[in-house]
Amino acid sequence: MESWSTFGGDLHLDLTGRRAGGLGLRAALEDALRTAVQDGRLTPGTRLPSSRALGGDLGIARNTVVEAYVQLTAEGWLTSRQGAGTTVADRPAPPAPAAAPTAPAPGPAVRYDLRPGRPDLSLFPRAAWLAAARRALTAAPNEAFGYGGPLGRIELRRALAGHLARVRGVRTDPERILVCSGHTQGLGLLCGALRERGATALAVEAYGLAPLRGVVAASGLRRVALALDEGGARTRLLDGSGAGGVLLTPAHQFPTGVPLPASRRSAAVEWARRTDGFVIEDDYDGEFRYDRQPVGAMQALDPERVVYSGTASKSLAPGLRLGWLALPRELAAPVARLKVLADTHSGVLDQLTLAELITSGTYDRHVRRCRLHYRRRRDRLVAALAERAPGVRVTGVAAGLHAVLLLPPGGPAEAELMARAGAAGLAVGGLAECRDEAAGPGDGSPQGLVIGYGTPPEHAFEGALDALCGLLGRL
Amino acid sequence: MESWSTFGGDLHLDLTGRRAGGLGLRAALEDALRTAVQDGRLTPGTRLPSSRALGGDLGIARNTVVEAYVQLTAEGWLTSRQGAGTTVADRPAPPAPAAAPTAPAPGPAVRYDLRPGRPDLSLFPRAAWLAAARRALTAAPNEAFGYGGPLGRIELRRALAGHLARVRGVRTDPERILVCSGHTQGLGLLCGALRERGATALAVEAYGLAPLRGVVAASGLRRVALALDEGGARTRLLDGSGAGGVLLTPAHQFPTGVPLPASRRSAAVEWARRTDGFVIEDDYDGEFRYDRQPVGAMQALDPERVVYSGTASKSLAPGLRLGWLALPRELAAPVARLKVLADTHSGVLDQLTLAELITSGTYDRHVRRCRLHYRRRRDRLVAALAERAPGVRVTGVAAGLHAVLLLPPGGPAEAELMARAGAAGLAVGGLAECRDEAAGPGDGSPQGLVIGYGTPPEHAFEGALDALCGLLGRL
Repeated sequence: MESWSTFGGDLHLDLTGRRAGGLGLRAALEDALRTAVQDGRLTPGTRLPSSRALGGDLGIARNTVVEAYVQLTAEGWLTSRQGAGTTVADRPAPPAPAAAPTAPAPGPAVRYDLRPGRPDLSLFPRAAWLAAARRALTAAPNEAFGYGGPLGRIELRRALAGHLARVRGVRTDPERILVCSGHTQGLGLLCGALRERGATALAVEAYGLAPLRGVVAASGLRRVALALDEGGARTRLLDGSGAGGVLLTPAHQFPTGVPLPASRRSAAVEWARRTDGFVIEDDYDGEFRYDRQPVGAMQALDPERVVYSGTASKSLAPGLRLGWLALPRELAAPVARLKVLADTHSGVLDQLTLAELITSGTYDRHVRRCRLHYRRRRDRLVAALAERAPGVRVTGVAAGLHAVLLLPPGGPAEAELMARAGAAGLAVGGLAECRDEAAGPGDGSPQGLVIGYGTPPEHAFEGALDALCGLLGRL
Repeated sequence: MESWSTFGGDLHLDLTGRRAGGLGLRAALEDALRTAVQDGRLTPGTRLPSSRALGGDLGIARNTVVEAYVQLTAEGWLTSRQGAGTTVADRPAPPAPAAAPTAPAPGPAVRYDLRPGRPDLSLFPRAAWLAAARRALTAAPNEAFGYGGPLGRIELRRALAGHLARVRGVRTDPERILVCSGHTQGLGLLCGALRERGATALAVEAYGLAPLRGVVAASGLRRVALALDEGGARTRLLDGSGAGGVLLTPAHQFPTGVPLPASRRSAAVEWARRTDGFVIEDDYDGEFRYDRQPVGAMQALDPERVVYSGTASKSLAPGLRLGWLALPRELAAPVARLKVLADTHSGVLDQLTLAELITSGTYDRHVRRCRLHYRRRRDRLVAALAERAPGVRVTGVAAGLHAVLLLPPGGPAEAELMARAGAAGLAVGGLAECRDEAAGPGDGSPQGLVIGYGTPPEHAFEGALDALCGLLGRL
């Protein structure tokens, strides 16, 4: 028998089912009583049977009931007073846990995803990663699994210092590198450090990655938008901007794809020196350049004025949430202090694995393989559009994983085309969503789609191209 | 020949070494020139030889030199004007990268580490983790490697919801769980959400983990310290505290080790309901209880008023930086929004692996093995002190990985003993460093050492015990 009489009637306690689920007798009783209090079947003030009586009712040892009562009293469900027996604790019944929020109503299904900002996830080198993880975790000292310093594992910082010098011309050393949770966290930490130095504004490119704007705003910095022209961000506008730093994408402006010319790089660095400001170089896809040698990192012009911010999000996977900053001396300590407050340091296992991947040469081979893959994609996109949608102008394709398709004047506007694309199951990006609100209304701005040709898996790429050309062919 | 004449004399460009290092001819030349500008051997305004002349000097094709000049001009190192040839760009020589900061002078070497807050790192289940990672990464869909939602991977949230309900009595569902970078990040996000709701203060226990105080302060919340007595935090003091929330360690107060009694749990929840505040339940070592069943999570008393904060730092490894929050409905959206701004979401690979570890039962087996290990340690510590240092009173040892050794009155003070320990190569914690400054001066507070008996690796534990008893035996 698994019930007893209360004021309200028999109370059923399902011990058998719980024991079948693997609980011991006492644990089953505790769980059954807890549930009965939780769901309101046992109301506050209800006096429970004596341990002897309940034990008899349930056919279990009295002591088991005593122990269960003690436990539930310790947990706050029951109260027990000398002479008054055991009663359900006197408190309002807690609200039932909320149901899961209903999922948003699905829009038209996305058949082909050509939104920018994401690599081809099917390229993630699972086997190589696992092999490197095995080597790294086997070799790691025990202390690696403990709390560490805010900069991150020394193995990765050493590997990165060498790698970044070699492939991007970055001038740094392991003591100036901080491993963080992607560029998002890195930017947040840098904004915080600039705020601490008294900055009130950060200059940004008038077009950029929308989510980063929220990160800057959350830090309390105002954004000052630098207009773009065919040579990228107009860095001369920094003078008089009042900004304490500037966020740039010098290797491959997002989204327009222009590399920042030498004169503007110098101008930005000069401005930073003159105003005691800093340049944040977001090198989000600097490893993917197709038509000539990569443009070296701007950081090398002045490692004390330019913060280099790199990421594994395009070369490996965004889901890793792995990024790194090469910091000027003056920012190293403040940024490290903020990292301690944010999360102590980044997780060590992925750091050790990436270090092993880099030092073994696997990372370089992987990047080369990806570069070839994306260059082919790029070539297919450009050729298809040239043939089937000659009205659009394709720009920004010397590097990276996305292209800007400028729309011919007189045809449908960007928003109209994006709506048509969506209705056809084709997800694309647009220039308008990249425009920073701080740049003011975009009346008369160029109209164009931002196409992430790296995004679809290989089997879907041809179909995505067809859909895109179908959309744009009539312009 | 690898040099040419400049105004200042021959400039040596080491191409041979660079080529031996794996660089192509043009890359080697670019790198050599870049280095020469960087280190000041080529000063601004210096005119470079014509491509024909330098090619001849170096014995390489003229075109290779032209390409290198174009590249370095694009990078901003050189300038090139029609008719004026190629010169080193006119900008102040950047300061040399700073040397690595000198390491702090080493103190007396730590032979035995008995500081609290860290598990025995040698217990990290490397083989089981790698096996689970292999299963998880092999099974994961491609989308798992992309950008995901702020709550974290659904696989882990499902596994945690079941696990926490079973072992800690937590009442939640996967849509209310947020995976974060350890309790540190979780607390920071919660403080941010409380601030957004208008809170200006957070109540904390008068003794606690020192680094968390910085996290609270960084969020802009003032701390109100709740005095402790033998029953833990005096939650009645919440009335009139003006706090928007309270941070508690109900299962095992850090550092005193007291479980929060049922009446105080209820009082805190009642206070939260009455004041529209929240309880943050830091369940940092709730899985390690030795002398009776674990005290269930306080969160179950009211999932809409108590945030449960758990972590893998004690059960697996702090270096993982994996924690989780079970959130009230009202805080779920604000905390998720702050997580997006902080780092988008936590890294997916460790999440997928931990999910696999939990659902396969490996995690439970590991925790049971650790519990046995730590209980034996605890028993050895208690027995050794009873025999060899009868003057100290050992408390807080029913659970967790640390003990408080209360010092007898009239003997040496805590600070004096810690200094003696340090001089003997024995690192220990003390009550004073746990005392929150917000609690005011600690005159007359209990004097005691906080001993992390989980910290040393097994081979060092006996020696650590000897050293500790040697220190305390004469009291």
